[in-house]
Amino acid sequence: MPKQERGQKTLNRVLRRAVQLASVDGLEGVTIGRLAEATGMSKGGLFAHFGSKEQLQLAIVEEARRIFADKVIAPSERIEAGLPRVMAMQSNWIDYVKGDSFRGGCFFAAASAEFDGRPGPVRTKLASLTGFWRHRLEEEVQRGIEIGHFRSETVAARLAFALHAYVQEANWAYQLLGDVDAFEQARRESESRVRRDATTDGLRSVKSHRVVPAKVSLGERREAVG
Amino acid sequence: MPKQERGQKTLNRVLRRAVQLASVDGLEGVTIGRLAEATGMSKGGLFAHFGSKEQLQLAIVEEARRIFADKVIAPSERIEAGLPRVMAMQSNWIDYVKGDSFRGGCFFAAASAEFDGRPGPVRTKLASLTGFWRHRLEEEVQRGIEIGHFRSETVAARLAFALHAYVQEANWAYQLLGDVDAFEQARRESESRVRRDATTDGLRSVKSHRVVPAKVSLGERREAVG
Repeated sequence: MPKQERGQKTLNRVLRRAVQLASVDGLEGVTIGRLAEATGMSKGGLFAHFGSKEQLQLAIVEEARRIFADKVIAPSERIEAGLPRVMAMQSNWIDYVKGDSFRGGCFFAAASAEFDGRPGPVRTKLASLTGFWRHRLEEEVQRGIEIGHFRSETVAARLAFALHAYVQEANWAYQLLGDVDAFEQARRESESRVRRDATTDGLRSVKSHRVVPAKVSLGERREAVG
Repeated sequence: MPKQERGQKTLNRVLRRAVQLASVDGLEGVTIGRLAEATGMSKGGLFAHFGSKEQLQLAIVEEARRIFADKVIAPSERIEAGLPRVMAMQSNWIDYVKGDSFRGGCFFAAASAEFDGRPGPVRTKLASLTGFWRHRLEEEVQRGIEIGHFRSETVAARLAFALHAYVQEANWAYQLLGDVDAFEQARRESESRVRRDATTDGLRSVKSHRVVPAKVSLGERREAVG
């Protein structure tokens, strides 16, 4: 293996470890010293590569972005646009938050709370990435309105706000209170919130195409309060 | 003023300052050294009082609890039980998160994310206090079901989950993205979520008693998607 490629592999391994540490102890908790200890690399080598704590933090955020894009964004983009894709985005996101992508729960939720009061490039990058995802949800709802999956009176920003809220809440409730029901509550609230703004065509689009994972079976279960 | 009383006054002033610092920089960011600098007290004096960083952190959490009880819990308890009180709890909580109680946004949201991966007495206290509030919301919904303000099929835990999610989301969106519309979105989503599970009696209870602040005028506006 050429030297450059080997270097890249090592770097990826270091960053994967760093993102796990950061999800538990916060970005500020991951110093070059601690990362050296956790990976068996030399402090000098890591310092030579990253240069500063801030550069290391930016690299960690970038690695978390890559994981999110891989596990949540890419699979959603393969689903039919409009309502089915909105449900897939939501479902993939819940799976990712619940799953083992990050040991300490959603990296972005933890890092947002940590950096919202600390202006600088790390905060700017976090705001841009998390803002992008909320914007994507809103954009997809808007598309759903245009193709007739959602009613014309639907306020895309409000629906996106609610959907985004449920997943962040589930992450919070699970991480702090150990509440394992929270993910199922997030799924059910998402489903009935989407249903409230959906048209008959929208509901049919999910049912007929069967593109949404079984767990989010819009249209198959009667909601008591729908 | 007796010496003991003067000491208590000074301590209160120090804790009020500490809770503000913690809301911006996190609990870990408030060391005895930094607090001494910010308040003009001696490090020795603060150390003699708090004894350890952990004791200081627990005192800061306790001070934040006192503020929350004062601004959110106490005024809600004076409102008629059931649906009107659920709406008042939600409205007072939004005002508190939006207002100037904490410079860096909701203290508990920030501290939860900071400590969810750090077992110990601080995490335990945070989980117990934030868990208590979510439980109070659920309990009040349950009461509303019993007195006929909410439909009998209402799942109290789900309604409480959604209401809690909207306020935490608004805090997140405002603190990280500077999104000022988020509070209004939280109010509207709360209103229409409550309406979805409410009975005619429940809606009437708010209208007739006029106990809910004007901003949350359940029953006066037709929801397009209600």
